[in-house]
Amino acid sequence: MRNIKLTIEYDGTRYQGWQRLGDSDKTIQGKIENILTQMTRTRIEIIGSGRTDAGTHARGQIANFKTDSKMVLSEMIDFLNRYLPQDIVVKKAEEVPERFHARYNAKGKQYSYYIWNNTIPSAFERNYSFHYSEELNFELMNEACRKLTGTHDFIGFSSLKKTKKSTTRTIDELSIQKEGNLIHFTFVGNGFLHKMVRILMGTILEIGSGTMKLEIIDEVFESKIRSEAGMTVPAQGLFLDEVYY
Amino acid sequence: MRNIKLTIEYDGTRYQGWQRLGDSDKTIQGKIENILTQMTRTRIEIIGSGRTDAGTHARGQIANFKTDSKMVLSEMIDFLNRYLPQDIVVKKAEEVPERFHARYNAKGKQYSYYIWNNTIPSAFERNYSFHYSEELNFELMNEACRKLTGTHDFIGFSSLKKTKKSTTRTIDELSIQKEGNLIHFTFVGNGFLHKMVRILMGTILEIGSGTMKLEIIDEVFESKIRSEAGMTVPAQGLFLDEVYY
Repeated sequence: MRNIKLTIEYDGTRYQGWQRLGDSDKTIQGKIENILTQMTRTRIEIIGSGRTDAGTHARGQIANFKTDSKMVLSEMIDFLNRYLPQDIVVKKAEEVPERFHARYNAKGKQYSYYIWNNTIPSAFERNYSFHYSEELNFELMNEACRKLTGTHDFIGFSSLKKTKKSTTRTIDELSIQKEGNLIHFTFVGNGFLHKMVRILMGTILEIGSGTMKLEIIDEVFESKIRSEAGMTVPAQGLFLDEVYY
Repeated sequence: MRNIKLTIEYDGTRYQGWQRLGDSDKTIQGKIENILTQMTRTRIEIIGSGRTDAGTHARGQIANFKTDSKMVLSEMIDFLNRYLPQDIVVKKAEEVPERFHARYNAKGKQYSYYIWNNTIPSAFERNYSFHYSEELNFELMNEACRKLTGTHDFIGFSSLKKTKKSTTRTIDELSIQKEGNLIHFTFVGNGFLHKMVRILMGTILEIGSGTMKLEIIDEVFESKIRSEAGMTVPAQGLFLDEVYY
């Protein structure tokens, strides 16, 4: 059987997230599976690198599926992009070895989060950033990023309950770039727990605006208590940029 | 009476354009007038610098209105942005002399037009650019821009029928910037006829892709016949950036 790897871009605004929910048509996975099923005339299931929440976007989500179809890759891309809604785009289709698994083989991910930092909102960034008007101290935020980088048990910065699985992850890069009123945060790591990027982001913001002290980071690493960390920022500022294999 | 000048940003995707159509709620002007009328408890009419077509966006549309309201400007901005839909934002409100008229006093405008130039479409630029996959010759397009710059009778590049009013306009700048797959065209001039930017843009594209010769520009200046010029590109790639006074 052929194993096909897809690179997918989507504007998550209208969707309930990546993962198919029953027969729901409001998920990215569901939309793509429906078109692939029409295309190959057999029921196709795709494996994503991981879920994204409702409203979260992707520039480079990865998924794979197995098929006996003999269709050439460029025709697959054309078919998919012709029948998918315009807010979901298949950027690439590649033939990969049969053992390739988009979730198990993922070695790391890059996410971006955008803050619109101005008292006046933005008509264009409204679905692609979090509007946060408070004045932000970049020195403190950079210090927070440095503290969060490295290998830690991030369970206190996630929505997970206690679990037997390891919740230790490594953040290789956490950087901040100011682009006018937009502040762009980049997170690179070997894996992220559920809601981890959004809770880290909320904590960095609360440190930057002064509602939390820098010390909260070490305290949450120690206590592992979610409620001591910062807010969960909204999903619409979050982009899955890239998955590393 | 006070005369208030507003600087307005909008994502035109959901609207039938700037100009109010009867009681329609689907125009930018209509939305803003309704909120101003609630705010001041008197029927307010606003004067825009000019219309924008359905689907066209603005980063700096200008409008003015007269009122007896004593509300301070910052409160007006807050009220408007609280009650306007999120895809319309009032960026600035200024007190101007009573004779200021957003349309009559406009001395010039800057527009941007964006082309998404790749075989693969973009999920994020779909409403903010025209997806045009043909390979483009930048040398020819730059030459076309040079030919269009200056003072000419642009009636052949507009949707206007013969008129007694002057259809001579001056384009001060027409430049091209490549930003990845996005090509950004900037138009600066003392005025633009109806659909002029979109028809100029279509003509530049047809010259760039080779379906029209560079000479077509002088021919249309001469013949003044709309049908000899290029296509009208879609409204969603067009942004009104700035109005000069």
